[in-house]
Amino acid sequence: MTKTLLKVGALIQSASEIIPVPSYIVMENGVVQAVGPGEYQGDRTGMDVISRPHSLAIPGLVNSHGHAAMTLLRGAGDDMPLMSWLNDRVYPLEAKLTEEAVYWGTQLACWEMIQSGTTCFTDMYFFMHDAARAVSDAGMRAILSWGMVGFNDTVKEAGITNSRSFVGAWNGHNNGLITTTLGPHAPYTCPPEYLTQVAELSAELQVPIQIHLSETQVEVENSFKEFGKSPIQHAHDCGLFARPVLAAHCVHVSDADIALMKQFDVRVAHNPQSNLKLASGVAPVVKMRQAGLTVGLGTDGAASNNNLDMFEELRLAATLHKGVLFDPTAIPAATALQMATEDSARSVFLPQNHGTLRVGAAADITLMNLESSHFQPSFDLLSNVVYAAGADDVTDVFVAGKHLLSNRELQTLDKERILYEVGRIETILKA
Amino acid sequence: MTKTLLKVGALIQSASEIIPVPSYIVMENGVVQAVGPGEYQGDRTGMDVISRPHSLAIPGLVNSHGHAAMTLLRGAGDDMPLMSWLNDRVYPLEAKLTEEAVYWGTQLACWEMIQSGTTCFTDMYFFMHDAARAVSDAGMRAILSWGMVGFNDTVKEAGITNSRSFVGAWNGHNNGLITTTLGPHAPYTCPPEYLTQVAELSAELQVPIQIHLSETQVEVENSFKEFGKSPIQHAHDCGLFARPVLAAHCVHVSDADIALMKQFDVRVAHNPQSNLKLASGVAPVVKMRQAGLTVGLGTDGAASNNNLDMFEELRLAATLHKGVLFDPTAIPAATALQMATEDSARSVFLPQNHGTLRVGAAADITLMNLESSHFQPSFDLLSNVVYAAGADDVTDVFVAGKHLLSNRELQTLDKERILYEVGRIETILKA
Repeated sequence: MTKTLLKVGALIQSASEIIPVPSYIVMENGVVQAVGPGEYQGDRTGMDVISRPHSLAIPGLVNSHGHAAMTLLRGAGDDMPLMSWLNDRVYPLEAKLTEEAVYWGTQLACWEMIQSGTTCFTDMYFFMHDAARAVSDAGMRAILSWGMVGFNDTVKEAGITNSRSFVGAWNGHNNGLITTTLGPHAPYTCPPEYLTQVAELSAELQVPIQIHLSETQVEVENSFKEFGKSPIQHAHDCGLFARPVLAAHCVHVSDADIALMKQFDVRVAHNPQSNLKLASGVAPVVKMRQAGLTVGLGTDGAASNNNLDMFEELRLAATLHKGVLFDPTAIPAATALQMATEDSARSVFLPQNHGTLRVGAAADITLMNLESSHFQPSFDLLSNVVYAAGADDVTDVFVAGKHLLSNRELQTLDKERILYEVGRIETILKA
Repeated sequence: MTKTLLKVGALIQSASEIIPVPSYIVMENGVVQAVGPGEYQGDRTGMDVISRPHSLAIPGLVNSHGHAAMTLLRGAGDDMPLMSWLNDRVYPLEAKLTEEAVYWGTQLACWEMIQSGTTCFTDMYFFMHDAARAVSDAGMRAILSWGMVGFNDTVKEAGITNSRSFVGAWNGHNNGLITTTLGPHAPYTCPPEYLTQVAELSAELQVPIQIHLSETQVEVENSFKEFGKSPIQHAHDCGLFARPVLAAHCVHVSDADIALMKQFDVRVAHNPQSNLKLASGVAPVVKMRQAGLTVGLGTDGAASNNNLDMFEELRLAATLHKGVLFDPTAIPAATALQMATEDSARSVFLPQNHGTLRVGAAADITLMNLESSHFQPSFDLLSNVVYAAGADDVTDVFVAGKHLLSNRELQTLDKERILYEVGRIETILKA
């Protein structure tokens, strides 16, 4: 791969390393080779040069929880209680989805995420070979899992078989851009012995686990009724925490739950907008962070959010907790950006330094237009990114040094084709 | 003014009137003359035709509370307790603002609002002749007031004099695009007799009043300590509610407060993002609406928000109350859009039908790109507008039939000039 010199107007290397002056980044083999303020002084021979003097470079955003192809169900049901939403809208529509639909739904998700500055995401869904193909074609980084449920022996067996074949086929694919995890849906859809079986498979295949935990108050109450303990304690007792685990939501967790999660370094995906929209509540993020947990940020699926814009989650994480705790210092701007980058990256098991633009980190970079109204004036670049700017300011996106969005134009995706195919699928879903 | 035929791909006439097929709007003399699905069948002689077959028309958003030129203080202080934010950051910087600075700060605000689909806003600030000139040059609709405080006799007198001259000079300016109100800041900055004087001036000048009321718990506690009653009751007892009043925030209001506001048809500006960011709390919007109050939506100033994007407020209003009330049916999509359009319009004293695209309503129109990812698929246009789309999807804006944004390009504002002037002011503020 050629060496690329990217020249920008300013640089946020990480939430705690701000370079508010013209800077450079040298990318080679998908990695940041050199970075700093001013002009690059090294040898430029054979380098591609991309000049964006009016853009700010930030680490690409990492979406730590979602169901990509659920873009196809966007707006199919809103403002409804969870169970009627699932039973009357989501499940009947999902029954109509095909491998091909999941491919195009995932491409639609990639389009939306690239355009809004996200470089990496997690996914838990089905027909995952097709989802992985869609991600691979888009050139994004992703941590993918085939969702598993345990309603009966047939689906249990299918979950194990599908996950095994999926991990075998895709883990490390596309120069490591795609990695895999196991995706048991939740303790309320997977019986205890099935969760134990998943933990064992995770050890055998040497991949982590992602699962929904303690999303709603009802889930926690039912867990106490059925198992005499919280979903977190139950997940641990089934053997899950012996493996690396990413737990999505954790809205209703007790101090004991938090302590247990800390003991086993369970990572959390905080999805503030989905939690509000589905009326689940507000996760105790300040408490979890104070306990030392790694808390990343996610959008959840577009059926429950209803978009995949990480800037919205970032801003909501930085404002919501202030408002409900009556504390203007809760989740400051730097913490919110760290959650959406470094902490999200750690939460989805990416290597150290991922989610930063330090030397040696993956060259996953988002550029934002410093000449947008949101960056005027410029008292504080970090504040402008977190509290004022947004998807409309994203101009360029690089993943592993590859240019996926250039001056707002998609480089790897065919927007017209996605519009056509999704329109076709929409007709089938509405029939 | 020429007659214009606007052809669009779909139309939201109001939150309860959705036309999900190609439609037309005829605009003349700043007003919607004809509107409906299909092709316009009337006489087209001499009409300008603007064709946007891939855009959705919605009523322009109405921002019911803010301080436009505070864009100049964006990011100057965040994540701080309210009083140190005001005393250590806001007041020292505001002391440096000149008439010229307010002109350019207001132009920056207009740029930001037009680009994000807002056609009308309220403002309470100072050097308002210059603010009004900036708005007038931008071609926006606005309800403006010169902020009044009563710390001493000099500023009290100045508030009265400035307001009187401002109302006289600008009320009804630019074919009625600019109207005025009085703007006493709050009961904690205006002593009782001053509020009474303002109420009398409001009756004399025949303009309404806008004021901050019950924004924080501390404000309410202090009001009880000082006056033995809530800020709402106190405002009433000073004679304010004998006049039309728009009350901003109303985060901490009791049932008795709400009943009193209902009795006098006091309108409310709900600013959910500002209330979260400043740690004020969550206003009881569902309760206020159930009591029959008109509750509009606002951004507040960019120093406390930190942008002027009404789509963010719209989405937050539609999700926040669900989450904190654990009720997925609280503030449905249609209600949120109604709050940001019709209800905001009524709250700022605009005529009936403003905030809709019905025949006879002002031709204040926002167009959104139906080919953006956020509108795929299209199960529910209203849901896509409220929960998925955003400022990045706004393509065109009309105010009173005048094209202010065309295919994302500003038509009345000089972006380069604003960047230059705001940059110059930024240097002065930082000195």
